Amino acid sequence: KVNADRLWDSLMEMAKIGPGVAGGNNRQTVTDEDGEGRALFQSWCEAVGCTMGLDQMGNMFAQYPGTDPDALPVYVGSHLDTQPTGGKYDGVLGVLGGLEVLRTMKDLGIKTKHPIVVTNWTNEEGTRYAPAMLSSGVFAGIHTQEWAYDREDAEGLKFGDELARIGWRGDEEVGARKMHAMFELHIEQGPILEAEGKDIGVVTHGQGLSWTQVTIEGKDAHTGSTPMKMRKNAGLGMARILEKVDDIAWSHAPDAVGAAGHIDVYPNSRNVIPGKVVFTVDFRSPNLSVIEDMEARLRVEGQKIADQMGLSISFEKVGGFDPVEFDEGCVTAVRNAAERLGYSHTNIISGAGHDACWINQVAPTAMIMCPCVDGLSHNEAEEISKDWAAAGTDVLLHAVLETAEI
Amino acid sequence: KVNADRLWDSLMEMAKIGPGVAGGNNRQTVTDEDGEGRALFQSWCEAVGCTMGLDQMGNMFAQYPGTDPDALPVYVGSHLDTQPTGGKYDGVLGVLGGLEVLRTMKDLGIKTKHPIVVTNWTNEEGTRYAPAMLSSGVFAGIHTQEWAYDREDAEGLKFGDELARIGWRGDEEVGARKMHAMFELHIEQGPILEAEGKDIGVVTHGQGLSWTQVTIEGKDAHTGSTPMKMRKNAGLGMARILEKVDDIAWSHAPDAVGAAGHIDVYPNSRNVIPGKVVFTVDFRSPNLSVIEDMEARLRVEGQKIADQMGLSISFEKVGGFDPVEFDEGCVTAVRNAAERLGYSHTNIISGAGHDACWINQVAPTAMIMCPCVDGLSHNEAEEISKDWAAAGTDVLLHAVLETAEI
Ligand SMILES: NC(=O)NCCC(=O)O
Ligand SMILES: NC(=O)NCCC(=O)O
Repeated sequence: KVNADRLWDSLMEMAKIGPGVAGGNNRQTVTDEDGEGRALFQSWCEAVGCTMGLDQMGNMFAQYPGTDPDALPVYVGSHLDTQPTGGKYDGVLGVLGGLEVLRTMKDLGIKTKHPIVVTNWTNEEGTRYAPAMLSSGVFAGIHTQEWAYDREDAEGLKFGDELARIGWRGDEEVGARKMHAMFELHIEQGPILEAEGKDIGVVTHGQGLSWTQVTIEGKDAHTGSTPMKMRKNAGLGMARILEKVDDIAWSHAPDAVGAAGHIDVYPNSRNVIPGKVVFTVDFRSPNLSVIEDMEARLRVEGQKIADQMGLSISFEKVGGFDPVEFDEGCVTAVRNAAERLGYSHTNIISGAGHDACWINQVAPTAMIMCPCVDGLSHNEAEEISKDWAAAGTDVLLHAVLETAEI
Repeated sequence: KVNADRLWDSLMEMAKIGPGVAGGNNRQTVTDEDGEGRALFQSWCEAVGCTMGLDQMGNMFAQYPGTDPDALPVYVGSHLDTQPTGGKYDGVLGVLGGLEVLRTMKDLGIKTKHPIVVTNWTNEEGTRYAPAMLSSGVFAGIHTQEWAYDREDAEGLKFGDELARIGWRGDEEVGARKMHAMFELHIEQGPILEAEGKDIGVVTHGQGLSWTQVTIEGKDAHTGSTPMKMRKNAGLGMARILEKVDDIAWSHAPDAVGAAGHIDVYPNSRNVIPGKVVFTVDFRSPNLSVIEDMEARLRVEGQKIADQMGLSISFEKVGGFDPVEFDEGCVTAVRNAAERLGYSHTNIISGAGHDACWINQVAPTAMIMCPCVDGLSHNEAEEISKDWAAAGTDVLLHAVLETAEI
């Protein structure tokens, strides 16, 4: 078993970098704080005897040697970046859990045939730069690196430039590495495991996602002197579409969810009728046809609302992935490990997107989940117990040792 | 008659300061650009022979001497600040029209008994600092200066500090001046005069305003892994309230208008269900009881929606003024001037708030309006013709000369 206290101490140490305003973290991708978090992680990896690889997307690869120089490595890891008001565990547990696997192996003098690589994938969260899971996506050949470099944040700063600015743009070709397998440990970010009293979620599938950015344009005008019947209120159009988004998601519940987290109103002045609103609709389902249906209905209903109100509207798909079925062999390794360790477990579908969803396209992949309090995530109050973290990491250790051949 | 070309050239000269992105202006209150605009205005006033007064709210008073040293001055003016995506004429015409009155008097060697003061009131727009008409409000004793100084912009910078920083916080006590009368020339910002083909609006009344800032709180949570039935989506609550705001305003139309121009969503991340939304509802009517009814219904309906959705909600009144009836004598002076000059005219109710609405509480006041294209204002595309500007300023000249006793 892993050292639960050491794992927890490292989680708390990392959480000091980019603290939030309410006990969580604001360590968004390719900021100075991200750079600081990376440097701390690197120093820990070197202390355990790893060599660090860094690719052109800033993905970090801390390699722990195996006994067979020709064997492909087994990868573990997740991401160190956070939401602007994020928790201390989302992503971080998967990276530092991987590190704890190596520390435990070193303590116990365990050697595996395959090397083990702990990875920190750049920009998993997708807040500062859409889409989410950007760099694992480039690794898996979903996006080109050029396109990823050109993504802009709200201030117009480009991803590639910011990555270079913080000093973490490496030389290694992205996606050149071959993997024997990949495991990602992550908090559930949902309420199921806690409600069912299970220690471990054996993730068999991941639900798919569609992000549609909607731009509605009306006409900026004075809120006082513009008669009601002359208004082209883009804010009201947005409101009507948000109501539809909710209807559409409910029509497929519990097999679908939908909401808009991002809404920008222009010019955002109390006495100007909004001339433009840009917002992003997030639809998810484990069922591809449901996602396609929701996406299509958003466009039809949105267009109808805009036409009725004399507004113009446009839709752009700014992120998305199809539902995922993880590798049977890797999933079995996770289930066997939980079984062997005596942890209660259940099959689960990931509600969130993860780097593992993309890596699953290029290597046998699976995920391990541990519960989180009230299913709350993407909130500074996100919480897990030390026991939950340790159980998940124990399962990670055993699944990795089995796959990397002890 | 005034010199139309000179007036127009000055309008175009002022518009070079704080240019917008689409042909209009972004010269928001107490910014560096506001400071630049003030300096240009001061230099023009001094060239015509005025002495400049500056009070502790940054209100500027350019005094042109009269023949009777004991006579109270006649005031004219408006504001030089603009919306973030504002037009070139809103406010500016009233200030530079006042200046053109003095230039014309100087050209023609016209002397009046009462001195004439051209005023630039600070922060009329109310975008950077709510409420609108802040400094004329302090002048009229509506707000205390201390309270005004403490207003904060979105970055938390205080009004009083920013006014000092740009170098335009004067020594003169605010509101100490006594006025014989006050006239404000302004573009209509609505569609009536253009539609009716009238040169001049004789403003008899102003509609009242109520700004209610609404804060809805739910719970930040993951858009993917949070089941629909566990959500507390503050964004959806906002959407439902915006629909009600529209219903409420329509229920009183055409005697009322309502909309929300300002909407801030937190944390505003694509994959976080909004935990908090802050927005400002702007209701207006020429009828006080209608405003009171709309305000009350917003609170009742908003509370109902929040309760149904498990959200918390709070309401804060952040701006407002009662409907205004302008001074009969001043209104008659405006009507007589239009008549004498042969301009077509009609009585009109101001849809927007103006500094004149507050000054009307402490001195006999009236307003003159000129048409604007398509009734469009608070938009960079705001447009008027040179003839319209000149006609309004001609009427201002004649009303002022009559009142200041030639
Ligand atoms: N795990 C996680 O929150 N990833 C961000 C991508 C998503 O929105 O699902
Ligand atoms: N004239 C004008 O637009 N003033 C701003 C105050 C208001 O919103 O009416």
